[in-house]
Amino acid sequence: MNESLITYSSLNGFCVAIFRKIGCSEQDALLATKVLISADARGVDSHGVARLSGYVRLWESNRINAKPNIRIVHETPSTAVVDGDGGLGLVVAPQAMEIAIRKAEVAGTGWVAVRNSNHYGIAGYHAMMALEKDMIGISMTNASPLVAPTFSLDRLLGTNPIAVAVPADKQPPFVADFATTTAANGKLEILQRVGKEAPEGWIQDAKGDVSTNPHELKDGGALLPLGGDRDHGSHKGYCLGSVVDIFSAVLSGANYGPWVPPFVAFLPLPENPVGQGIGHFFGAMRIDAFRPADEFKAHMDNWITTFRNSRSIEGEKVLIPGDPERWMEEERMANGIPLQIKVKEDLIQLAAKFGLQHPF
Amino acid sequence: MNESLITYSSLNGFCVAIFRKIGCSEQDALLATKVLISADARGVDSHGVARLSGYVRLWESNRINAKPNIRIVHETPSTAVVDGDGGLGLVVAPQAMEIAIRKAEVAGTGWVAVRNSNHYGIAGYHAMMALEKDMIGISMTNASPLVAPTFSLDRLLGTNPIAVAVPADKQPPFVADFATTTAANGKLEILQRVGKEAPEGWIQDAKGDVSTNPHELKDGGALLPLGGDRDHGSHKGYCLGSVVDIFSAVLSGANYGPWVPPFVAFLPLPENPVGQGIGHFFGAMRIDAFRPADEFKAHMDNWITTFRNSRSIEGEKVLIPGDPERWMEEERMANGIPLQIKVKEDLIQLAAKFGLQHPF
Repeated sequence: MNESLITYSSLNGFCVAIFRKIGCSEQDALLATKVLISADARGVDSHGVARLSGYVRLWESNRINAKPNIRIVHETPSTAVVDGDGGLGLVVAPQAMEIAIRKAEVAGTGWVAVRNSNHYGIAGYHAMMALEKDMIGISMTNASPLVAPTFSLDRLLGTNPIAVAVPADKQPPFVADFATTTAANGKLEILQRVGKEAPEGWIQDAKGDVSTNPHELKDGGALLPLGGDRDHGSHKGYCLGSVVDIFSAVLSGANYGPWVPPFVAFLPLPENPVGQGIGHFFGAMRIDAFRPADEFKAHMDNWITTFRNSRSIEGEKVLIPGDPERWMEEERMANGIPLQIKVKEDLIQLAAKFGLQHPF
Repeated sequence: MNESLITYSSLNGFCVAIFRKIGCSEQDALLATKVLISADARGVDSHGVARLSGYVRLWESNRINAKPNIRIVHETPSTAVVDGDGGLGLVVAPQAMEIAIRKAEVAGTGWVAVRNSNHYGIAGYHAMMALEKDMIGISMTNASPLVAPTFSLDRLLGTNPIAVAVPADKQPPFVADFATTTAANGKLEILQRVGKEAPEGWIQDAKGDVSTNPHELKDGGALLPLGGDRDHGSHKGYCLGSVVDIFSAVLSGANYGPWVPPFVAFLPLPENPVGQGIGHFFGAMRIDAFRPADEFKAHMDNWITTFRNSRSIEGEKVLIPGDPERWMEEERMANGIPLQIKVKEDLIQLAAKFGLQHPF
């Protein structure tokens, strides 16, 4: 048995305590925890508590400001640039998304570029904030460079995810949330743990040749943009990752491309930074800035049921973006969140570091 | 020799004459032509004059209104919904993009959803309209269903392209313009003509199995979303195509999914339409709604040169999105635009139909 179950509320209490210990306000600790463990609840284990000790190490190396002065540095009726003041992305991002939503309430849409931030958890959380307001939510972020553009040997882009959340009426919302690479880094980490090869098209080696070795990144290899190779449209994945980088960082004044700071504190910060911290980009579009929300949502129900009920390949089922994560959340909220033994040990060490009780 | 060269200006004059013959105003004929043959100039041969007779056949079957009353039916400071009144997408789309640009001038960004339109040429043309205003331009459209969502046997999405144009300073602009499928339908048509097999991951057969037969769509097969299969991220391409469909059509009140009208006039219109015509979605973001434009453009120059000058795989060169089309345009404006013999014959027939002189 290499994993055990923990309840959402136990995990919540523990994470809040840790964020308080590094100096977050009660409010920020609650918010950071909510964002962080939404990943565990939704089954995106790579972005949840597995990263908690990583955030703490960033704080220990003075790369995270636990008491940030998050502020708007420039704005128009439908836009803002937010400076995250080196705060936890988990706190900066939802505040920036709130600003996008407030802009949308007045101007129809709101678009917020963020600089001087850090890792913001799962992209989908922030996009989904728009749903209860009858808005479409959009969220993207750049990330430390692991991805080689088509035909390049250099790692110049992050896995740069995009999330889009669209409300429906009786149907659950449409929630797309995906890295712009063939496979997210978390999937590679799973293969590393179980000692399996990666499918072709996920990674290249240091010479740019096809590789199936999940450890290839340690030897100068790179993740590949969605598409994998030129014949299969990797130039499109490269376009997508680039757009995320430009919107998140060149618009906001954050670092872009190879200058994006690493998540892991043991790697040095890139020299000669071209901006501040990492960057995010958020959008909120009020449905009724286009057509009546009830009309739109009825059509979304029709869209969703049409796709869900289409004829499927034998043994498979056509899914709607967001289905697997929603099902996972229902299951885990009812039965508990599984923790890998390594993650559990990591959290127990964190508890010891701060002299905290732990529920593990 | 199965192609001949023609100058841009000859092609321009001929297309304007044809659009005039179907009843377009002089202004609309000039605009439609400019949009249409920007595809030929940029090397996207599938979307240029090769489609001219297709537009004429749509008009002959009363599916295109040559004298549309293109109008805003709903708006907020940063949004509008435009009804294209069944007009040529080639005319409706640039007018809608103009509205997005005007909105951005006042509100920082402008977002326009369009219903009741038709095929709008290349996505990139419309996005690039934003460049000279120091804005980022975004353009997308849905299209007739040829693409099966991951695990589906049904064709529910079009090739649904996305274009994003970003201005730079001394460097040429960044212009991404791509179908959200592994390969655009035009690439399949080329393989059909030359009798070659398609790479795996482009298409599936009627049972959802891998196929390399470029004629598979005639036998119930489908194009595949970017990624190709689940292991290679086709669910991400499916997400992208879906977002384009929802933004273009569910927001605007156009037809979506399997209800999108076909481009070819010999196919019947789908029964029980869920909206009007096909849909587009445009965005314009003023750079200085985020940061000073000169600062942004200097960083874009740095972004572009960093990526362009990265180490490349042996025998290849790292490109910036927009490079191949720009090089093609320079070459073709200088030396002429090649016309496939079949396209040329088609245009000669069009000339005969309308009693026009032709330059071919």
